[in-house]
Amino acid sequence: MTAQILASRHEVERLYGEISAEAGALRAEGTKPSLATILVGGSGPSMAYARAKEKACGKLGIDFRLREYGETESDAEIVSGIKKLNQDSSVHGIMLELPLPKQIDPFKVASSISHLKDVDGITPMNRGLLFMGKLDLALLPVTPLSCMTLIDGTGVDVKGKEVAIVGRGETVGLPLAVLLIKRSATVTICHSKTKGLREVVRKSDIVVTATGQPGLITTDMLSPGQMVIDAGVSVLPDGRLAGDVDPRASEVVGWLSPVPGGVGSLTVALLLKNLLKAIRIGKENGQDLTIAHNNKP
Amino acid sequence: MTAQILASRHEVERLYGEISAEAGALRAEGTKPSLATILVGGSGPSMAYARAKEKACGKLGIDFRLREYGETESDAEIVSGIKKLNQDSSVHGIMLELPLPKQIDPFKVASSISHLKDVDGITPMNRGLLFMGKLDLALLPVTPLSCMTLIDGTGVDVKGKEVAIVGRGETVGLPLAVLLIKRSATVTICHSKTKGLREVVRKSDIVVTATGQPGLITTDMLSPGQMVIDAGVSVLPDGRLAGDVDPRASEVVGWLSPVPGGVGSLTVALLLKNLLKAIRIGKENGQDLTIAHNNKP
Repeated sequence: MTAQILASRHEVERLYGEISAEAGALRAEGTKPSLATILVGGSGPSMAYARAKEKACGKLGIDFRLREYGETESDAEIVSGIKKLNQDSSVHGIMLELPLPKQIDPFKVASSISHLKDVDGITPMNRGLLFMGKLDLALLPVTPLSCMTLIDGTGVDVKGKEVAIVGRGETVGLPLAVLLIKRSATVTICHSKTKGLREVVRKSDIVVTATGQPGLITTDMLSPGQMVIDAGVSVLPDGRLAGDVDPRASEVVGWLSPVPGGVGSLTVALLLKNLLKAIRIGKENGQDLTIAHNNKP
Repeated sequence: MTAQILASRHEVERLYGEISAEAGALRAEGTKPSLATILVGGSGPSMAYARAKEKACGKLGIDFRLREYGETESDAEIVSGIKKLNQDSSVHGIMLELPLPKQIDPFKVASSISHLKDVDGITPMNRGLLFMGKLDLALLPVTPLSCMTLIDGTGVDVKGKEVAIVGRGETVGLPLAVLLIKRSATVTICHSKTKGLREVVRKSDIVVTATGQPGLITTDMLSPGQMVIDAGVSVLPDGRLAGDVDPRASEVVGWLSPVPGGVGSLTVALLLKNLLKAIRIGKENGQDLTIAHNNKP
């Protein structure tokens, strides 16, 4: 038995087509969509991530600005730069490249981004709007959006399905759990303290894993017909990328989104979709956005 | 076998003792804690809820103000009243009594409350801070806090425990799921579209139910030794209150928080704890609260 590999290439092409058309329409109205990316230190994979965005923006008629900070920069300096971007009406989206150096408080920096420009959905306000199911007003984090896009691409309706999410992080596991619950899946959230992980995974209709532990999900934990979305990314000692799931899972399950080539390949396109959504939310709500009252006690 | 009934009366007395002492200390420093309660229409049980708060405030040296609106009042009028309370520095907490009349948009009204005065944790900002595990900065909704207080009162550590939450609402199920996940429980969120509810409930160490469907959880779904927290409240045709759990569950399980007398009996005390927390957060962070930047693009 061989799993169907989820078609991320097809989805990327579809999304880029939509983005290119909408960005063109905005430019024709006089608004050139603009993404600012903040890179602190540029260690690890964060520089490569920023370059991938620059390249996509170039192709799609979107303005790209890189704000680079040194490896030893302070929170205060970065927050001050973010506030300038918040006030700059020619910038529509602000993306903070992760990982950040250790001296940086990620909450302090993330929460200084205007929620209206928060294209990776990391501010408390956008987290809260997701939690409240206000998906029209929220900018949602791109990795869980990528998982949902791949699941929806199979045509399988998640309503009433049992879903195991392995990993409770704020980047993937927890926001994806909320999205799936709002869509009426029955969701179990597992993590390092879960006993009986094997049983939870084996009996689920859909398994999404985002732990960064290569090979955590072995083939004996999986069942025929399952859908498995691997959202874990690790760099192996030899430099290759690995997911959480044993690649031989493709011989067992019904659908597989593998690493590399699955979830990660959609994230740039979904970030740019969020940029366009941010422009729409700003235009439609302007200063009247109800939630804008919330921080003016 | 007879379940141990969770000791909410003991918890209430402990909490009232703490609140009375802290409110006294604040008054001695010149700050009289003040709660404003917004009552729209006053139909159903909302008037009784407001009166219960008034009575507790009277006992504990806390100022209580009731803002009453008619059954047919508009969103705009209520939002305008909330904005005045946001700006009134002698008011520290704003509580919106539920249920609201049908013409009112609960999101619009709730999200106009300053998150710094949001003592029932219903604003997008406090939902987001909960989601991000910033429990020191967040004002948390009182019913899930009540569930956690009762669970913790048993001395059982939730870490690694399997918890079934029945009900995915924003008032109880969803925020409680997040609190339990942050505390390392393995949580399954069930709801009306869940198949196999019986199996999920039966195999869990802890069951929390908040659906408002009297008798949904029958004794044959439960197992010896389980902890069952009933956070469902319904009014039966004869006027009595009922929970989601068959009262005979006490003959099966190990611990039971029943209705009436369990979760609901702690909520006023926890609301007043939140009022004092709101004053502390305001004093410690003042205008410097990092998250206050978030709505000033």
